[in-house]
Amino acid sequence: MSVFLAQNSYGKSRVRLVKVERGEGRHDVFDLTVDVALEGDFETAHTEGDNSLLYATDTMKNSVYALARQGPVDPPEAFALRLARHFLERVPHAGRVHVSIAQHPWDRIQADGGAHPTAFRRAGEERRLARVSATREAVGVEAGVEEMTVLKTAQSGFEGFMRDDLTTLRETADRLFATAVRATWRFNRDDVDWNASWTASRQALLATFATHDSLSVQHTLFAMGQAVLEARAEVDEVSLSLPNKHHLLVDLAPFGLDNPNEVFISTTEPFGLIEATVVREADLY
Amino acid sequence: MSVFLAQNSYGKSRVRLVKVERGEGRHDVFDLTVDVALEGDFETAHTEGDNSLLYATDTMKNSVYALARQGPVDPPEAFALRLARHFLERVPHAGRVHVSIAQHPWDRIQADGGAHPTAFRRAGEERRLARVSATREAVGVEAGVEEMTVLKTAQSGFEGFMRDDLTTLRETADRLFATAVRATWRFNRDDVDWNASWTASRQALLATFATHDSLSVQHTLFAMGQAVLEARAEVDEVSLSLPNKHHLLVDLAPFGLDNPNEVFISTTEPFGLIEATVVREADLY
Amino acid sequence: MSVFLAQNSYGKSRVRLVKVERGEGRHDVFDLTVDVALEGDFETAHTEGDNSLLYATDTMKNSVYALARQGPVDPPEAFALRLARHFLERVPHAGRVHVSIAQHPWDRIQADGGAHPTAFRRAGEERRLARVSATREAVGVEAGVEEMTVLKTAQSGFEGFMRDDLTTLRETADRLFATAVRATWRFNRDDVDWNASWTASRQALLATFATHDSLSVQHTLFAMGQAVLEARAEVDEVSLSLPNKHHLLVDLAPFGLDNPNEVFISTTEPFGLIEATVVREADLY
Amino acid sequence: MSVFLAQNSYGKSRVRLVKVERGEGRHDVFDLTVDVALEGDFETAHTEGDNSLLYATDTMKNSVYALARQGPVDPPEAFALRLARHFLERVPHAGRVHVSIAQHPWDRIQADGGAHPTAFRRAGEERRLARVSATREAVGVEAGVEEMTVLKTAQSGFEGFMRDDLTTLRETADRLFATAVRATWRFNRDDVDWNASWTASRQALLATFATHDSLSVQHTLFAMGQAVLEARAEVDEVSLSLPNKHHLLVDLAPFGLDNPNEVFISTTEPFGLIEATVVREADLY
Repeated sequence: MSVFLAQNSYGKSRVRLVKVERGEGRHDVFDLTVDVALEGDFETAHTEGDNSLLYATDTMKNSVYALARQGPVDPPEAFALRLARHFLERVPHAGRVHVSIAQHPWDRIQADGGAHPTAFRRAGEERRLARVSATREAVGVEAGVEEMTVLKTAQSGFEGFMRDDLTTLRETADRLFATAVRATWRFNRDDVDWNASWTASRQALLATFATHDSLSVQHTLFAMGQAVLEARAEVDEVSLSLPNKHHLLVDLAPFGLDNPNEVFISTTEPFGLIEATVVREADLY
Repeated sequence: MSVFLAQNSYGKSRVRLVKVERGEGRHDVFDLTVDVALEGDFETAHTEGDNSLLYATDTMKNSVYALARQGPVDPPEAFALRLARHFLERVPHAGRVHVSIAQHPWDRIQADGGAHPTAFRRAGEERRLARVSATREAVGVEAGVEEMTVLKTAQSGFEGFMRDDLTTLRETADRLFATAVRATWRFNRDDVDWNASWTASRQALLATFATHDSLSVQHTLFAMGQAVLEARAEVDEVSLSLPNKHHLLVDLAPFGLDNPNEVFISTTEPFGLIEATVVREADLY
Repeated sequence: MSVFLAQNSYGKSRVRLVKVERGEGRHDVFDLTVDVALEGDFETAHTEGDNSLLYATDTMKNSVYALARQGPVDPPEAFALRLARHFLERVPHAGRVHVSIAQHPWDRIQADGGAHPTAFRRAGEERRLARVSATREAVGVEAGVEEMTVLKTAQSGFEGFMRDDLTTLRETADRLFATAVRATWRFNRDDVDWNASWTASRQALLATFATHDSLSVQHTLFAMGQAVLEARAEVDEVSLSLPNKHHLLVDLAPFGLDNPNEVFISTTEPFGLIEATVVREADLY
Repeated sequence: MSVFLAQNSYGKSRVRLVKVERGEGRHDVFDLTVDVALEGDFETAHTEGDNSLLYATDTMKNSVYALARQGPVDPPEAFALRLARHFLERVPHAGRVHVSIAQHPWDRIQADGGAHPTAFRRAGEERRLARVSATREAVGVEAGVEEMTVLKTAQSGFEGFMRDDLTTLRETADRLFATAVRATWRFNRDDVDWNASWTASRQALLATFATHDSLSVQHTLFAMGQAVLEARAEVDEVSLSLPNKHHLLVDLAPFGLDNPNEVFISTTEPFGLIEATVVREADLY
């Protein structure tokens, strides 16, 4: 019997990097988790144990730290591009390089009446994402957010859905809508003002979530993707993943109490999971 | 500007189900986490907030429990098939249904000189996977394992790899090789003896990991996939993901001690990540 | 042989409660995880299986939701006091009731030029703590924070420590100092303006961490506790737990690069763990 | 105002150690997570930043690895004793040393018709615990288990408990009882055959859980503690913590189906938490 390698990739995941940029009397902190992966002509490593074409994942890790020293890591999209091009150069038989960066946020601590120049507080689990997928011919750049956990207590309902004999969910014009947004968006250029673009796209997501009259998670998801596309001409495609973190109204009737949408049980599982990709007309495929 | 929905799916994730089959004087326990997702013609839900075609994810959850009562949940591949066909029937405009099941293992507690008929101990974090992706025309079935954490202390090296000025990793003919295997394999039929097939494929993975003379993670990964294909004619493709959970030899020289491959630091990040798909010749694409 | 029950407690943990207070055109969200535990005369439940004195933990859970409907849950110290007194009243043979509350923070989303009245963003993993331990004779109240993750890039060193033949750590006058503060403080009264007190104590912790010239984790921990005691007369004791989340300077010399305290590896394990309790003179025990 | 240090401890947590003992043609693997903490006269480090009495936590970590090389790490109780005595000797002003070890289990992989001599599979999340607390005058040793997740499908009920107007839980003579046992037991000697003792105590816990006619969690908890005390004369005290991992019977009546204790929802929160310490008569305090 003949057995073949159909596809392969390998790399280093979760390279934890903190870079301190030490300005005059003021430091900036960049806290990144970097993943690198290569695809290409590595077949004999698999089939024959020939390591001569393997660029060690340990060397990939070293490269992340060395390149962090040799240039800026902010914005993360630019650092990812720099890393991807570096690996394409170093590994001639790599056909494609993937670099994914998650940036962990730190705010300045308020002290002595202002933002402290060298002390920081972790600003939550929301992470900024930057992803580059590069070949020798083309490069694709994506930005995004994950664990952007949001909740709205008004302008959210779910009515008029299909019912059958297995349906028990009640229709409601007023429910809590909570989700942990994961969104990534694809750029149609690679000469973008990455930080300005990211800030604007993220704000479009947040503001749309807040102000949308939501008839369903799907409905708001689409509006959020549309808002990014309308706000940013450099973005052609937005992919969103919205887990519906259900908040169940507690039945207080057994205790002689009403519950006018006030007291909820927050649950973690099961959860609805709504995912879609929203594109401009020209990109429809 | 026109904005379109390029793709979409939605469903219920992490439906936690425990079914007790109560035989005469002996119970069996099946502990499953079920994910369901639908793809299809749900565009107006996104673009117009029209819920009339949405089958609620809450109803999907109810369906899992109802179908668990109405028939067996073992083997999980068969339960996933039953669920997928149910949803295709209930939701006429769904084009594709995905059902993924993770089965959590329980062993019988040993007591009074034997395996207890109604008491169980959780047998680890390794999970059996069953996945069905079904359309009205065709059905695909996969089985697998995840979090199968294994370690070998002999027959593993990594030598002869590429070196450049960023390489510091030493070559070694004798290293610890630890990984948490995630493997899924695709069947070419759907009338398989699922439990026998799964047991044999899992054993092929474990035995190959144990006995292979490993020149790299890639080398052993390929051998593991090959072993499943050689053992099981009903399997055509095996996808493997092997994080390299590095164990670093501790440098004891500063304390006047040697360390003949004996004392290691077990690390969690960063990790190498090696992934590939292995196929039979006929399936090469 | 005689065997006895030396101590016991039981209760309900991780009751997840979200309460929405619906003001005119503006909602407030309170997101709490509540733990309840009782101690008392429950011996025969253990030794004889006599359940007649057991107040079901399910009823404790119901009580949390019912009392959340019947009165405010903010500030959490007051809600914890209300719950503790409720359980002492309901369970005559309970000698002591513990109620612990973790409050999860939500900020308002900025939209349309201001803070949105009904939409929120999860403001991180830092949690406010409130704990009450009440008997029929006395009540103790504590407040606190956990997962307050902070980092300072200046004014931190570690020099002059003990050295022996197992010591390899270098002395440094300039290191990153990162920790996830867990601090609880005990009140000497129970008629406190809880929200004002908590805000001021938390700020004392943050500002002291930021501005302290740290000679060690112990040194800064003590200063942080002292700051709370100096700021708040209603607090008599502060307990702090500071994991030292080590950031290792990357050795870039093999690549011909220097590293002037700029590029670090952020690690999760192992970690130093520094814990102490700081008290006013009068309370010294 | 005077502020004082009331108590303090510091140390290194989560030192990850894997030791391979390389016998002729057969290896043994010991996978430990070690925590070390010192108490003693470290006051000036806190109050004055005087580091001259601080033994660095980094040196504690080095010590764990060096002592692992210099002698056996199995049984973990003996290794913990060796570490504790080492630190008391190295740090003259330490009054008390705590060493806690969690041992992670590995089984041999079955291959070629037998247990493989050098390949292993992680045998779950259950961990063996060993804890030593030593002063210059006395030493206390404890052993234990954590994350011993067990489930019984028969011989478990909960009836006759207190009811009031907040009680909705139904009485049942037949419920699932699932828990993740954490148990530690204190020895009255330190010259024990640690491995034999641990194996027997663990088996007493498991067999009692399996065979007990459980009227409540408290009832079974006590029986489990009693079983250890009856089985092992070298143990004087057993502390148990049993989270009640609720399994809810699914209400299938809306779908025209019964549910004869067969289909359950497995939940993670909230959970009951039952804790107690069981002692011999002589130790009653």
